[in-house]
Amino acid sequence: MLAGVVVAVLVIPQSLAFAMLAGLPPQAGLIASILPVLVYAWLGSSMTQAVGPVAITAIMTASVLAPLAQAGTAQYLALAAILALMSGGLMLVFGLLRLGFLAQLLSRPVVGGFIAGSAVLIIISQLKFLLGLQVQARGAWEQLTAVGTQLAAVNPFTLGLSLLSVVLLVAARIALLPLALRWGVGPRWADMLVRIAPLGVLALATAVLLWTGADIRHGVAVVGAIGEQVVWWAPVSVDADAWTLLVMPALTLAFINTVQGISMAQALAARRHERLDANQELVGLGAANAVAAFSSGMPVGGGLSRSAINTAAGAQTPLAGVVAALTMALVVLVGTHGLERIPLAALSASIVVAAWSMIDLPALRQAWAYDRADAAAWMGTAAGVLVLGLQWGIALGIVLSLATLLLRASTPHIAVIGRIPGTEHFRNVERHGVETLPGVLLLRIDESLFFGNLGAVEERLMAELTARPDTRDVVLIMSAVNRVDTTAMEVLTDINRDLRDRGISLHLAEVKGPVQDRLEKSPLWAQLTGAVHLSVNSAFKTLEPSRDELRSSD
Amino acid sequence: MLAGVVVAVLVIPQSLAFAMLAGLPPQAGLIASILPVLVYAWLGSSMTQAVGPVAITAIMTASVLAPLAQAGTAQYLALAAILALMSGGLMLVFGLLRLGFLAQLLSRPVVGGFIAGSAVLIIISQLKFLLGLQVQARGAWEQLTAVGTQLAAVNPFTLGLSLLSVVLLVAARIALLPLALRWGVGPRWADMLVRIAPLGVLALATAVLLWTGADIRHGVAVVGAIGEQVVWWAPVSVDADAWTLLVMPALTLAFINTVQGISMAQALAARRHERLDANQELVGLGAANAVAAFSSGMPVGGGLSRSAINTAAGAQTPLAGVVAALTMALVVLVGTHGLERIPLAALSASIVVAAWSMIDLPALRQAWAYDRADAAAWMGTAAGVLVLGLQWGIALGIVLSLATLLLRASTPHIAVIGRIPGTEHFRNVERHGVETLPGVLLLRIDESLFFGNLGAVEERLMAELTARPDTRDVVLIMSAVNRVDTTAMEVLTDINRDLRDRGISLHLAEVKGPVQDRLEKSPLWAQLTGAVHLSVNSAFKTLEPSRDELRSSD
Repeated sequence: MLAGVVVAVLVIPQSLAFAMLAGLPPQAGLIASILPVLVYAWLGSSMTQAVGPVAITAIMTASVLAPLAQAGTAQYLALAAILALMSGGLMLVFGLLRLGFLAQLLSRPVVGGFIAGSAVLIIISQLKFLLGLQVQARGAWEQLTAVGTQLAAVNPFTLGLSLLSVVLLVAARIALLPLALRWGVGPRWADMLVRIAPLGVLALATAVLLWTGADIRHGVAVVGAIGEQVVWWAPVSVDADAWTLLVMPALTLAFINTVQGISMAQALAARRHERLDANQELVGLGAANAVAAFSSGMPVGGGLSRSAINTAAGAQTPLAGVVAALTMALVVLVGTHGLERIPLAALSASIVVAAWSMIDLPALRQAWAYDRADAAAWMGTAAGVLVLGLQWGIALGIVLSLATLLLRASTPHIAVIGRIPGTEHFRNVERHGVETLPGVLLLRIDESLFFGNLGAVEERLMAELTARPDTRDVVLIMSAVNRVDTTAMEVLTDINRDLRDRGISLHLAEVKGPVQDRLEKSPLWAQLTGAVHLSVNSAFKTLEPSRDELRSSD
Repeated sequence: MLAGVVVAVLVIPQSLAFAMLAGLPPQAGLIASILPVLVYAWLGSSMTQAVGPVAITAIMTASVLAPLAQAGTAQYLALAAILALMSGGLMLVFGLLRLGFLAQLLSRPVVGGFIAGSAVLIIISQLKFLLGLQVQARGAWEQLTAVGTQLAAVNPFTLGLSLLSVVLLVAARIALLPLALRWGVGPRWADMLVRIAPLGVLALATAVLLWTGADIRHGVAVVGAIGEQVVWWAPVSVDADAWTLLVMPALTLAFINTVQGISMAQALAARRHERLDANQELVGLGAANAVAAFSSGMPVGGGLSRSAINTAAGAQTPLAGVVAALTMALVVLVGTHGLERIPLAALSASIVVAAWSMIDLPALRQAWAYDRADAAAWMGTAAGVLVLGLQWGIALGIVLSLATLLLRASTPHIAVIGRIPGTEHFRNVERHGVETLPGVLLLRIDESLFFGNLGAVEERLMAELTARPDTRDVVLIMSAVNRVDTTAMEVLTDINRDLRDRGISLHLAEVKGPVQDRLEKSPLWAQLTGAVHLSVNSAFKTLEPSRDELRSSD
């Protein structure tokens, strides 16, 4: 119960801010924290996930709708509702069709790069509010250019409030926790203090505004009247053209919301040693978004900070969500007057600081140290989001995820091996002093065989044969080959025939059970010129005497 | 020299037919067998590949251009030239950038499905010529419908010639080789005979036409005048709109030509025990297509049948290509009168029979027996080509190739293992009578770890832990793990922390050298709660006494 009330109060400014980010009126953010939250509490799988407006889906909505309608117009609201309904419906369908595994299409570096790129776009979108400028440009780069040319028109009072908010928010993030702990505050309360801090900064900024009357005297923009404009339930347009136009954006939004929602719920479940049903989670999130379409058009997702507040405040079951929703409803019914004179600059400051913290540079550094290709995928996706926009950026991310996978698998590690004298152990001839049999080539392939890497295997084999023209037996050691697909099986059959024409026998060794089960049904098995050996050692022993015989028969 | 002359003569009808298939005038096919062949002989890598008009790129050209212009018009010719120049240029660039490995993006079943789907489209496109109908419809299905509604207008003389040609061509394919061998013809000459047979059928059909005068008396369509309409060299239009329109089609055509050309050249090179430089091959094919743009707009590729004729006739070096090109030039200069009264129905019959033989059902059956997923990819791609068209069909093929790869890798084989009593061998507990240590879970993962399968690994691990609540040590056996990507490393780090919170140590065993080299730089290595064991056996021995100590200290 307490957790519910705390979450409701703390997410009020966040909800206002993300509505602004999505190009929707502030009340949309509040409304989106009521019905969708109830629906999620009913259908969702996570015990502690708190759903509501989140930054990534908010900026997605804005970037999708910006080219189609002017933010704030009735047309924009109608399109936002369709987008939320379609993407929610798609997520629901994904969940019912048990497609939750689709969230695995993206590697973590790619997700990290996508979020970082989005964060930069979010920050750019907030510049006009921070500086108090009237900018009508739609795309991120057009906005940046427009802001650049209007720098002379910056409202100094707005800028002052922005700077004050940003400085205090950053200070709270960096210094508040160690300070509180040093003052003897318990770790759990210190954590709560840090999470409440943004509310305090907003209150302070509002107090400064009320004291100076900057909104009336100096034109500092504020949230404005909310109460009378709240729409609790409105039909969603059935305009076929608009629906067609939004199919791809809705699919993208659904996919991003799926990836973000599931990875968030997974992290929360892991912390509580629970198992997550990704498909049930999708059903819950999808239904929440579909319902959001009928009240505000504001897409909802699993929020990192609101979920953290929820668990920190002691939430154990979805009841916390129900209480939060009811509290929010109460706020909307009676308390919106208190929100009207919150300066937009302070809200923007909180968005910018939150967005900045989404750029996880340490993770990039770690990926760089561990695997350059993954770091390149991080940077490529981030650059893709910035240059091509969110939709093509995520598409590029999927391509980069799959490309790194394909690239790695298509350059297999292959070693010529020999026996360590006096043992039954076999090692790489280049790294160890091992004995080999004349005319016998032992080749270990450290990768599953598939259409993408057979070319590399064939090339290496041919190169080794050119270097060893007296080879009469080739043994492929398959101990690390977990799969052989149809293409690979066919190419191996071709290689077997090709080697036969050259008077060379092809042997296999240490073939895994599942691989052998399949190969037994293939032409390769029927035509194999050599034998299938259970171990490298038995292949070595079998081929050793046969060589002697050959020589003695010369 | 002989090979060159033989190829030139034999490919004349093929060149005429494929030009017809591409919606281009017949002379385009002849012209495309001159300059491009010379350029390929100069720049290409394959010693025996014979390039010229091929079925797949011809139908691609027709299907791309059909929605944009009426076949045979000047606009159609201009667009065809741009398409050939762009796709040739792209292939040239692919080759220079050493992107030849892109041809590996497609698995053989997907290529097979694509070719089968294309073959059906080719056959549909030829129905109007076989039946002697005037059909203006552009898409394959529209053509089929139009043909269906006009069945009453079928020209019986054309149909007769078609049936005669088809029956003879099929008979030659099936019966000629065994018959010739039985008659005592040597295998090489018998093979030549089979390849010459289509020319004989065409000659017979033409003779029947000349004898009956069916083209003049009964309106049977023939090739018509060629000589005066030959264009040796014409500029390619620089219309920016047309270029923009054809970017994606040109990219698709370049990709398909790359896949087809490289796989063809690879097969030829393998047969001659040569190594193929795929990038050099791309440069050769790309330049040949770019040159083709300036004379006919007919795209060229590596042809299966013309290459086979080339090698069968004794070609050893690209000189055969030069001779073939010069012979063809001679034919175009002096001999086209002999081609004018070839009935289109007979040409169509040869296209249809060739297309039919491109549908490799035995390969589908083999894939079905070997791996259902690959067979499904075959059928999915073929259906994609038929329903969505060639371009989206090939895109679907790439997606299906990658999806099968991803799907297989994301469902790794994981086994709980134990020791075969009295040995140092470890096997799956479900398949063998093995001994296990209480509180110790030995888990062998038979797959490289990456973003797509860590979810499955984590799920299996948690399920095993739920089934064995007394577990205190988890040993991951990494003997078949060839790679651990950044996502997998991070998730393993999370699992390690999660297990630590539950009082369980995480051990690794049999980590491969390259994997260990990377992991040593990761947080997992620094935080690992257990040890890294060189072998499963040493892990087993190490954990055995520690369990005893634990128990004795109870």
